Amino acid sequence: MTQFGRAGWEAIIDLALAEDIGTGDITTLATVPAEAAARATMLVKAEGVISGLDAAAAVFRRVDSRIEVTLRAAGGTRVSPGDIVAEIAGPARGILMAERVALNLVQRLSGVATLTARYVAAVAGTNARIVDTRKTTPGLRILEKQAVRDGGGHNHRVGLADGVLIKDNHLAAIGGPDRIARAIARAFAPHTIKIEVEVTTLEEVEQALAAGADAILLDNMDLATMRRAVELVGGRALVEASGGINLDTVRAVAETGVDLISVGALTHSAPALDVSLDFVLSDSATRK
Amino acid sequence: MTQFGRAGWEAIIDLALAEDIGTGDITTLATVPAEAAARATMLVKAEGVISGLDAAAAVFRRVDSRIEVTLRAAGGTRVSPGDIVAEIAGPARGILMAERVALNLVQRLSGVATLTARYVAAVAGTNARIVDTRKTTPGLRILEKQAVRDGGGHNHRVGLADGVLIKDNHLAAIGGPDRIARAIARAFAPHTIKIEVEVTTLEEVEQALAAGADAILLDNMDLATMRRAVELVGGRALVEASGGINLDTVRAVAETGVDLISVGALTHSAPALDVSLDFVLSDSATRK
Amino acid sequence: MTQFGRAGWEAIIDLALAEDIGTGDITTLATVPAEAAARATMLVKAEGVISGLDAAAAVFRRVDSRIEVTLRAAGGTRVSPGDIVAEIAGPARGILMAERVALNLVQRLSGVATLTARYVAAVAGTNARIVDTRKTTPGLRILEKQAVRDGGGHNHRVGLADGVLIKDNHLAAIGGPDRIARAIARAFAPHTIKIEVEVTTLEEVEQALAAGADAILLDNMDLATMRRAVELVGGRALVEASGGINLDTVRAVAETGVDLISVGALTHSAPALDVSLDFVLSDSATRK
Amino acid sequence: MTQFGRAGWEAIIDLALAEDIGTGDITTLATVPAEAAARATMLVKAEGVISGLDAAAAVFRRVDSRIEVTLRAAGGTRVSPGDIVAEIAGPARGILMAERVALNLVQRLSGVATLTARYVAAVAGTNARIVDTRKTTPGLRILEKQAVRDGGGHNHRVGLADGVLIKDNHLAAIGGPDRIARAIARAFAPHTIKIEVEVTTLEEVEQALAAGADAILLDNMDLATMRRAVELVGGRALVEASGGINLDTVRAVAETGVDLISVGALTHSAPALDVSLDFVLSDSATRK
Amino acid sequence: MTQFGRAGWEAIIDLALAEDIGTGDITTLATVPAEAAARATMLVKAEGVISGLDAAAAVFRRVDSRIEVTLRAAGGTRVSPGDIVAEIAGPARGILMAERVALNLVQRLSGVATLTARYVAAVAGTNARIVDTRKTTPGLRILEKQAVRDGGGHNHRVGLADGVLIKDNHLAAIGGPDRIARAIARAFAPHTIKIEVEVTTLEEVEQALAAGADAILLDNMDLATMRRAVELVGGRALVEASGGINLDTVRAVAETGVDLISVGALTHSAPALDVSLDFVLSDSATRK
Amino acid sequence: MTQFGRAGWEAIIDLALAEDIGTGDITTLATVPAEAAARATMLVKAEGVISGLDAAAAVFRRVDSRIEVTLRAAGGTRVSPGDIVAEIAGPARGILMAERVALNLVQRLSGVATLTARYVAAVAGTNARIVDTRKTTPGLRILEKQAVRDGGGHNHRVGLADGVLIKDNHLAAIGGPDRIARAIARAFAPHTIKIEVEVTTLEEVEQALAAGADAILLDNMDLATMRRAVELVGGRALVEASGGINLDTVRAVAETGVDLISVGALTHSAPALDVSLDFVLSDSATRK
Repeated sequence: MTQFGRAGWEAIIDLALAEDIGTGDITTLATVPAEAAARATMLVKAEGVISGLDAAAAVFRRVDSRIEVTLRAAGGTRVSPGDIVAEIAGPARGILMAERVALNLVQRLSGVATLTARYVAAVAGTNARIVDTRKTTPGLRILEKQAVRDGGGHNHRVGLADGVLIKDNHLAAIGGPDRIARAIARAFAPHTIKIEVEVTTLEEVEQALAAGADAILLDNMDLATMRRAVELVGGRALVEASGGINLDTVRAVAETGVDLISVGALTHSAPALDVSLDFVLSDSATRK
Repeated sequence: MTQFGRAGWEAIIDLALAEDIGTGDITTLATVPAEAAARATMLVKAEGVISGLDAAAAVFRRVDSRIEVTLRAAGGTRVSPGDIVAEIAGPARGILMAERVALNLVQRLSGVATLTARYVAAVAGTNARIVDTRKTTPGLRILEKQAVRDGGGHNHRVGLADGVLIKDNHLAAIGGPDRIARAIARAFAPHTIKIEVEVTTLEEVEQALAAGADAILLDNMDLATMRRAVELVGGRALVEASGGINLDTVRAVAETGVDLISVGALTHSAPALDVSLDFVLSDSATRK
Repeated sequence: MTQFGRAGWEAIIDLALAEDIGTGDITTLATVPAEAAARATMLVKAEGVISGLDAAAAVFRRVDSRIEVTLRAAGGTRVSPGDIVAEIAGPARGILMAERVALNLVQRLSGVATLTARYVAAVAGTNARIVDTRKTTPGLRILEKQAVRDGGGHNHRVGLADGVLIKDNHLAAIGGPDRIARAIARAFAPHTIKIEVEVTTLEEVEQALAAGADAILLDNMDLATMRRAVELVGGRALVEASGGINLDTVRAVAETGVDLISVGALTHSAPALDVSLDFVLSDSATRK
Repeated sequence: MTQFGRAGWEAIIDLALAEDIGTGDITTLATVPAEAAARATMLVKAEGVISGLDAAAAVFRRVDSRIEVTLRAAGGTRVSPGDIVAEIAGPARGILMAERVALNLVQRLSGVATLTARYVAAVAGTNARIVDTRKTTPGLRILEKQAVRDGGGHNHRVGLADGVLIKDNHLAAIGGPDRIARAIARAFAPHTIKIEVEVTTLEEVEQALAAGADAILLDNMDLATMRRAVELVGGRALVEASGGINLDTVRAVAETGVDLISVGALTHSAPALDVSLDFVLSDSATRK
Repeated sequence: MTQFGRAGWEAIIDLALAEDIGTGDITTLATVPAEAAARATMLVKAEGVISGLDAAAAVFRRVDSRIEVTLRAAGGTRVSPGDIVAEIAGPARGILMAERVALNLVQRLSGVATLTARYVAAVAGTNARIVDTRKTTPGLRILEKQAVRDGGGHNHRVGLADGVLIKDNHLAAIGGPDRIARAIARAFAPHTIKIEVEVTTLEEVEQALAAGADAILLDNMDLATMRRAVELVGGRALVEASGGINLDTVRAVAETGVDLISVGALTHSAPALDVSLDFVLSDSATRK
Repeated sequence: MTQFGRAGWEAIIDLALAEDIGTGDITTLATVPAEAAARATMLVKAEGVISGLDAAAAVFRRVDSRIEVTLRAAGGTRVSPGDIVAEIAGPARGILMAERVALNLVQRLSGVATLTARYVAAVAGTNARIVDTRKTTPGLRILEKQAVRDGGGHNHRVGLADGVLIKDNHLAAIGGPDRIARAIARAFAPHTIKIEVEVTTLEEVEQALAAGADAILLDNMDLATMRRAVELVGGRALVEASGGINLDTVRAVAETGVDLISVGALTHSAPALDVSLDFVLSDSATRK
């Protein structure tokens, strides 16, 4: 992938390295000779779905462009304890200085992919897609969106600029019984962008349809109401379910016939996947 | 707190806003008048310990300097569903554009504080302090370090520049039976910084003590060995336990007499605390 | 408008000021006392549509936060020679240092709005909207998109992230007789984004429709073919005309029934609107 | 040319790519395989003078350092429809993502060079040089200054730091009948920099000469007065004509004997030169 | 002075604060309450000329915008031990965190002004101006140029963009007996910029004059040759002496009649002027 | 050394190049052909200790990545007039544009190393280490810390984040007779960081010891009191002497038995070491 396709990586990688290395890794500079070379393997220590290896590779190269990283698994691969997902070779100092930031990214992003895969499995066979939200880790939006896709999920809009989603607060700002119609009428977005409206009642579903919404977000509806909303829409717009849906409830939601189920927990509450770096000093290093 | 005491906030806040707002919040710009004013409350929806309100306030002010944020709780406060932790007032557009990034920070940091508090409670009455690691979220190091303190924990070194921690990989790079002694001898850190060494055996504990280590990290030792290590050190250095310690095992570890217990999960696997923004349009806005 | 709604302004304003002021305005620093205050009026010298005043105001405030700018016209206002569109008051040095960059922005953006208005007038009474392209001035994308709206036009996608537009080169990269269908099938964009395909023949129009395209771009078609394409689509997708359309030909294109006409010249070839700054030293200044 | 000789390019190129690519080129990423290679030619479609190819090449390399760009024409070359001015080869995705920004630069800068060449031709055989102004596109100052030279023109000062030009507003700030003499006396610029004064009457020309001005700018004078000003100066200072000069009037101005004629339109109103990118997928790509 | 007149300050101030404060001032945050207010005086402890107070004030305000700084002396003022040059009031934490960087700037810049004043005094009554060089502290160019003026000196060109100075290496790159004439002929600088040539012999002085140089730099000439060079030039160009001139030799150089004497030591070897900050906790603070 | 180990270099190098080169080196661009290659040697012209060659090499490569720099001396090497410390080869333009900034760094840093070496020599045979302070050149902190080590000195804390140093102002902010004890009790620094306290009397030395200070800074004490302080401490803490110590007094201070002597002059008042660049055009260049 080209540099500007991963623009988001560079900023967060630089920030993470700056906060970790600061004015210098005083332990490594003192104890490891500048000429020491090393090899290391990135080792999985739990069941899951891997993600973020490209970003981890970028971390190593950013610290020292001479470090070579060979990826052994593509994003989205299911992994088990003992799997080696990457091999790293190059100056020992640089590998040591990059290690923590690289692992922090892989552990977190693999955690997102792993949790997503569990939600996707839970709705298998239904019509529903699992989609993410904007409840992502600050600075990691693009990488976490990729991790969700690696886990088999789909992306909702990336940010506020690539989708119109009229929420309750926007509607409140307009006010009046015809607020949904007026909100949709006001939209001046490029014609490449669809308009989605958040609703809480079946009456609002009808208003949104009448006003020409491309998608309708059902906020915190019970299953029965959701089912009736899906029938009401009848394929004239995409239907998204949202609000407090978890692994226990997601299948029932999917079976109401909604097209999309958005789950904030994919990115705000995924536990890290345990991944470590096994460091192997090469001969040229240990001889020093 | 002054601006440069929160330097880390600014970079991650700008990055988070940039990735969320991008070329513009097309929904808000289309549906909410520029002149609309609003009030909102930040509402807790689960039991926990709050953290990150300062950062959230900075997000609102960064989006629009006219937004006024009044904090209703200090970092470290225990909160329950229904608690209001902040009040926000100002231009409606700005509040809507800042909302998600502000909540993402508070939810995540409060999650860290809440999990930390559980670990701290688990070791109550022992000599052990719960400390964090460098397994933090990229870009959020300083804020998560504060969240750990808000949860009653203590901080390990902030980054690679403010502590010497000689780990297994550094020792491997030196090699030889006297590698611990030689590693400590090589350290050229400022005299303001202590030297800590990671060990895996009691023999290495003795070597570290002999070489003058200020602190000794016991890596993945069993409880019995830890206890003997603590006796061996006899107060001549700080003793830190580390490696796969969880809520089930942490009390037993603490009871071995170690001074510090470092837990990566505090920052890499804390689920978010549920916090939302209740938006209230003020009169001047709804009249428009 | 809030700060992050004008993010694009800040970067280009800083860049423009940096390249103009460099290490210092040696003329002003030498000849104008630090304490001198001044008032100035921004004066229109040609017929047109004004745009960019917000950006110009931001330039003055960026150079010296004490400069007060009062706008006398909203973006999109028709102006004539002699019209005053803004009043500026504050430290004379700052006004002099900001003058050129502020005017460069207003002149250029008003030029875009003025040219857009001529195209919009040319298609009055038809169904067609005039839309811009990505052929904008480097660094001014967001401001020029606003200028097009100020001139009565509409925006196409802002950039490569907020719309899928499959062009000839993408199709060539896929190859094969069913390349349009396969391209659309491959799209993994968020559900908030529509899919548009560029076509050159009526056969391709049919393929695009069959594959479910949300919009179809007719590239360099003659008027008769365009008309037939519009009939063929029959409202099932948006139809956009593009390619070498100018003020002489735009009405005929609009009368084919297309929904959108994109015109690169709006932003790449609009002559500047003549606007100047009339400087009036205030009493307190001239007394010095 | 070295990196820091083109410092201005880098900032505007990064800004232009950021605003165009944003969070990712979703069309290209979805439809073009990561491994696809491509060749493309940059093709001229109108008569003119080429400029900006170096900058365009930098755009491609910035997006993907593996893209190779071979320039086929030097800046300042006269071109005709069908001329190939550059060849591009490398990863197809990167070429597609860089295409628009690269063309936007070449089209605009070639437009400046082309218009400049027309002015230069109009004054052929006279003593006058055509010079640019500070009415440049924000962020493109250095590139447009080069484009003016490519068109056969000369540069006025680059910015406020490399020339003293005392204008009417500076004189007004000083006030009094001897304001020209006092303004020149106040200048504390480095001795490497000349002093130019703007005047509107022959009396002011005499004052400027008496005060030791190195150059005199005649603002909006009629031809007869300009001619007398040139005689009055008699070679003791450079004489520059400025103010509303266009292609119809520039030759008559030149024939008054002035040394320099500054024309704002060179950079603020030059229409773009039509240049396109013809994309050719290489074999290795189409086989995929 | 306006913000962009001090552009150079901001970058170096941010860099200096970042390297000093890093991830936080752990001493101040631990020991000084957030609410503590303080007053402090900036006290001179040696004879000299003050400079850099504006920059110091900017440091305090950058750390905390609530800190108020009142300057008690203008740049260029002669100071003695015990003089108070500034008063600072505001949050104690911010004052403590800014103190060192602010003092580092004032001490260094006052050192430059003080040394310059000694050189200026040494040539009093002659025709010669003391000018600086480009041998400035990295990042402090603009501030040190101001410090030289504060000491009574004059500035040479600020950087490589605002003056043509053809040095020996440029001449060597051209080669041939007529290299001086050819170098001057090649210059394509804006007409606002003078051309200076470095020479080492009287013959080269004649060549430079013949080629129309605006200024001639005599490099490392002995006094007798300098005197003859001044006579040879006879006022047709500015004459600058350079090379190893110190306080012992500068008067003799000045008496040769040269117009300018450039001294690298002004900025590369000036000892710091001793200035300290006397901290006074206000009542509201000490009560806490 | 890896990139992030020299993070501080990059920022100051970019800033220094930006302020020196600005919008372009108009002399070099005009007089030296783009294709000219050159070789140059960096030549020492005075006795001293070299430092900063890595940074200088980085400057050349930053200006043009094709420039090759071969270092002939390691940091800390004693040098004499005539010694060649580096060889540079590559494009002539780039070498000329980088020369001044590269030399400015080497001259300044070697000045620091040279002065440090004189202090270190003065205390030879005693127990005392010479350490630096935070009175460094803005932006050069890390490089000057290295220069001090190159001169045989040791580093005090790098910045406010990697050491607790409770100074008089912190103590004043706390107040009361037990302020030292309370200050130390308040410290919440990571356990990797030592606590140092500034004292002015023997009574305060005792209080600091009692409160568990790891190091004690004796501020401006006379020799006799220092000696008694050292006896009082008796090895229970590090003892640092500070305040107005110069080359005449440093040995006597060392002989009191203190462990550390901090000297601000090392970095704030070191005269530059004279180093120049001898430019040799290669054949391929001179032939043009």
